Amino acid sequence: MPLNPKRTILELKELRALTGDANGAQRVAWTDKWIQAQDWFDTKLAGLPVEKHRDAAGNKWITLVGASEKALIIGSHLDSVPNGGWLDGALGVMAGLEVLRRISEEFGGKPPVTVRLVDWADEEGARFGRSLFGSSAFAGTHSIAADRVRTDRDGITLESALARCGVAVEKIGNAAVERKNAAAYLEIHIEQGPVLENAELPLATVLGTKGVERHLVTFYGQEAHSGSTPMAARRDALAAAAKLALEIRPIAQKHPDAVCTMGSVKTFPGIVTAVVGRCEATLDQRDLNTGVLAQMFAEAHAASEKFAAEERCRVEWSRIWSIEPVPFHPKLIEFCNAAIQETAGQGLQLPSGPLHDAAEVCRIGIPTVMIFVQSLGGISHNKIEDTKEEHLELVVAALDKLAGKTIEWILSQEN
Amino acid sequence: MPLNPKRTILELKELRALTGDANGAQRVAWTDKWIQAQDWFDTKLAGLPVEKHRDAAGNKWITLVGASEKALIIGSHLDSVPNGGWLDGALGVMAGLEVLRRISEEFGGKPPVTVRLVDWADEEGARFGRSLFGSSAFAGTHSIAADRVRTDRDGITLESALARCGVAVEKIGNAAVERKNAAAYLEIHIEQGPVLENAELPLATVLGTKGVERHLVTFYGQEAHSGSTPMAARRDALAAAAKLALEIRPIAQKHPDAVCTMGSVKTFPGIVTAVVGRCEATLDQRDLNTGVLAQMFAEAHAASEKFAAEERCRVEWSRIWSIEPVPFHPKLIEFCNAAIQETAGQGLQLPSGPLHDAAEVCRIGIPTVMIFVQSLGGISHNKIEDTKEEHLELVVAALDKLAGKTIEWILSQEN
Repeated sequence: MPLNPKRTILELKELRALTGDANGAQRVAWTDKWIQAQDWFDTKLAGLPVEKHRDAAGNKWITLVGASEKALIIGSHLDSVPNGGWLDGALGVMAGLEVLRRISEEFGGKPPVTVRLVDWADEEGARFGRSLFGSSAFAGTHSIAADRVRTDRDGITLESALARCGVAVEKIGNAAVERKNAAAYLEIHIEQGPVLENAELPLATVLGTKGVERHLVTFYGQEAHSGSTPMAARRDALAAAAKLALEIRPIAQKHPDAVCTMGSVKTFPGIVTAVVGRCEATLDQRDLNTGVLAQMFAEAHAASEKFAAEERCRVEWSRIWSIEPVPFHPKLIEFCNAAIQETAGQGLQLPSGPLHDAAEVCRIGIPTVMIFVQSLGGISHNKIEDTKEEHLELVVAALDKLAGKTIEWILSQEN
Repeated sequence: MPLNPKRTILELKELRALTGDANGAQRVAWTDKWIQAQDWFDTKLAGLPVEKHRDAAGNKWITLVGASEKALIIGSHLDSVPNGGWLDGALGVMAGLEVLRRISEEFGGKPPVTVRLVDWADEEGARFGRSLFGSSAFAGTHSIAADRVRTDRDGITLESALARCGVAVEKIGNAAVERKNAAAYLEIHIEQGPVLENAELPLATVLGTKGVERHLVTFYGQEAHSGSTPMAARRDALAAAAKLALEIRPIAQKHPDAVCTMGSVKTFPGIVTAVVGRCEATLDQRDLNTGVLAQMFAEAHAASEKFAAEERCRVEWSRIWSIEPVPFHPKLIEFCNAAIQETAGQGLQLPSGPLHDAAEVCRIGIPTVMIFVQSLGGISHNKIEDTKEEHLELVVAALDKLAGKTIEWILSQEN
């Protein structure tokens, strides 16, 4: 049975019907719908000569044992955000399954290297705010002490939600045993951005995941009556923040792929009759290059100090979160370019702004690459998230070619 | 007994001890503390030959009947915001009482014209969001249909809160009977702004209350992923709002006393990882000149359209509230300047940005003027609101002189 990308689309539609509703996908990790999606997935494995188990962090591993213990891993996630799209995550898992079927078929159930499919647990972090949960446990970058006390909006702790799914939070680090013999990691995903659509191309090689600097920037001015305080006497915290909101754009635009975003602004007291005394703004900066990221952070910081001084305010920065850039493996990038060329002709190369489980895998030295497929309107985390079916077929085929090349490479390294 | 401004200060401190706490004044209208303040005030009237009653809107009237029915009215309000200051409102009532005492004393209980003191009900609108409640009922600019259904944060309706204080909401318009024979209206108040302090002067003649244009300005862009959306592909609603936040300042600064304020900005979805798809900003514009106010509104509107177009967003405006400028009476302004000159030497003339009950009285044609006394730090609606005691004494004395001049003027008009 040859590779059948149309089957992947049919299965994705089946999963959507089973675990979505009028508002979109509802496969939030650690919920009944997520478990239902995994049970459905298990039925798709029937007849395949694979070993399957869940690791200590709730990741599901499907292993097709090969002649060599060296393993090619293909991964993605079945979990979704609430009211999510039908493709984000699920596409990668179902495409991986199709490739696994093809390989099993081609080699009579015993390929030259071991091939593993992983469904990472809780990539989205939608319920407890901790994204890349399962892959970070695998990579050893998890943080149990901080995670244990996380609660969802109903006050249920992460610890108890995991226990209900058979996962003991203090043991998730044991997922590291799955790293053994890992030789390469592949992942496909929808782009979740407009670049491929604007370029009118279906597929892109992903060069890595951008590093992120994420900060809360608070300007302190002086709350004052909007009617009785002359313009010249004001210390308007919003004015300083507004200047920064505009200045982060030229700071980003010096660099081809860099982005800077002010996503949230809160004003205090935040009433129509008062000059803003305090303004809290979030800043999210991303680039694939460590030096660019550091430069953008330094420039935004200096600009905020300048604007605060101009407005007779003061400014404080506090880091919300950060991650270094994770560039993917040069050889796998080369294979990926070739696989896209063979499947779809011209392709793009671009860094990923969003994080993916691939970043966690790559950080610990496992050669990694990803393929992006075009997102219609660049929209994801929404029920209207979509991709043309011909593009979905292309990305399954490209993953298959990439897997073939990667298996050859793993074999060549053994010798 | 001559005028005794020191007594006014003692009485204000007594009131503060009785109806304030560690967080400031708590005389919110229609609450027990407010009623307590009024009961205390009644005790201060003992021995004065006055008639007293509450009108249909809850305003308290103290009348010293004179030889002429023509009445000089002195007014202010005992109610405060929650955690308010000791002077906002109460200073005007207690200074008015001191002047009433002086006049009663001087004329043996029967001055040449009638003199009335009014404690307006619910100037602040702190509990139900309807400021100038009692004075607008007096002026006939109240809006019963809209007010009846207002609720406080505990869900108690304005109607039931008023009923508890003996006020029937459908009858508040009957307060208009109090307009009979009104010949002039005087009010003193703390400035609530920094102008007098910066000028190192204690007192100012208030030229009128500024008109207000108050709008909600909403920019609509496109929510997008902060990591995957290139800078050039964004339609950032916050960027358009930030440009407007900065542009309203030169728009105001073309005019000497005009102010424009963006007091509240809300971002949607308002998360660190998303470009702002919708941004709601409030705009408050004030000036004493109708033409200036209209020009500032038109310029801000045009600027918002320009910025929306630049950012590929659209913008919608909706009026929250507006009031026309209310210039005070030229003759009374002249008397006020003279009274300040005689009391404190040099004074200022300035428009009031905040609204006051005087605006409602003036709107219906009753000759009106106000005196401002310096606010330390320009701060009000706060427990740290304060004014130097020597300045408090000066403003009581200036009100007394102004009242004397106004009585003469009323008499001169009768002849």
